[in-house]
Amino acid sequence: MIRALTQLIEAFKKLPSVGQKQAERYALFVIKNSEDSIENFASAIVNAKKNIKTCSICCSLCEENPCEICSDEKRDKKTICVVENYTDLQVIEKTGKYKGLYHVLLGVISPLDGVYQDNLSIKSLLKRLDGVKEVLIATNPTVEGDATAMYISDVLKKYDITVTRLAKGIPSGGSIEYADEVTLVNALDGRKKI
Amino acid sequence: MIRALTQLIEAFKKLPSVGQKQAERYALFVIKNSEDSIENFASAIVNAKKNIKTCSICCSLCEENPCEICSDEKRDKKTICVVENYTDLQVIEKTGKYKGLYHVLLGVISPLDGVYQDNLSIKSLLKRLDGVKEVLIATNPTVEGDATAMYISDVLKKYDITVTRLAKGIPSGGSIEYADEVTLVNALDGRKKI
Repeated sequence: MIRALTQLIEAFKKLPSVGQKQAERYALFVIKNSEDSIENFASAIVNAKKNIKTCSICCSLCEENPCEICSDEKRDKKTICVVENYTDLQVIEKTGKYKGLYHVLLGVISPLDGVYQDNLSIKSLLKRLDGVKEVLIATNPTVEGDATAMYISDVLKKYDITVTRLAKGIPSGGSIEYADEVTLVNALDGRKKI
Repeated sequence: MIRALTQLIEAFKKLPSVGQKQAERYALFVIKNSEDSIENFASAIVNAKKNIKTCSICCSLCEENPCEICSDEKRDKKTICVVENYTDLQVIEKTGKYKGLYHVLLGVISPLDGVYQDNLSIKSLLKRLDGVKEVLIATNPTVEGDATAMYISDVLKKYDITVTRLAKGIPSGGSIEYADEVTLVNALDGRKKI
């Protein structure tokens, strides 16, 4: 095998859930591409790493610290939505429904993966609770997400803050027939008057 | 969305079969990584593009032209194995069973994708037939691979060369119960005395 090619395949294999075959396909694609577009690809990688910082307030990603949302005067500063990562923040932001601030945990409590409460940005969340009325915990409805939500709501008990969680239930467009038991129980528990 | 991040996501989306979600995961992985390892990643991409050439004889990839296999005096120069791409060449080479030369077609005939016989390296194959006794066509057993094999064997008819094709049949470890009809017909047609 050619050395430069092996090195490139090894580099691609470091990406999440990319195996040997997938890395080979990426590498051969890179080699087939024009030199210009490859230079662009490489510089996009280096630029992203150089220019993207972590917001010192909400731990989200930003080009200018603090991030756009934290420095936006129009946002509702009484509500903080706690999310696992930047991608989840983006998805909630896209709905246009939420006007408050965010706090990115940078993960969830998962002892099996060696992630404990101190590895998350919970301490910096506690530092910004002045004037906050509601903390909406938007972790994923997984075992780890649930545990993290429980932990945070426990920690917040001593503050005079309403702690809420995203509703669990049957997704829009989903079918009751194929819903799993836990989802159905959640949907029954969370039933609403219409 | 942050501009440098969007650019990186767009760059990753150009890789084969990478969509928005996958590109976002790759991009966030890159940002989380240390600056050093990211520089290495970027330089691996640029280096691969710079250092890897196409062999002027067999159209395979190489660092030195002609490639290792074409310039290896020990290889059997009477046999040429025709493969679709460099990856297939690697897989056959790994078996250690084949000692002849290769010829990389750089694709298969596929009019629906705009690939015709002239887009493949068939002309350069015809130029290197001096002293060749056997051409082993190792295209994939797909419609396009079969059509390409037929076309090449047609072209080679006027030469005094044995044209062979990789055997089709039930894969090792496979089960007859789950084999599709075409595979079974091929296995019956190709049955061998034991």
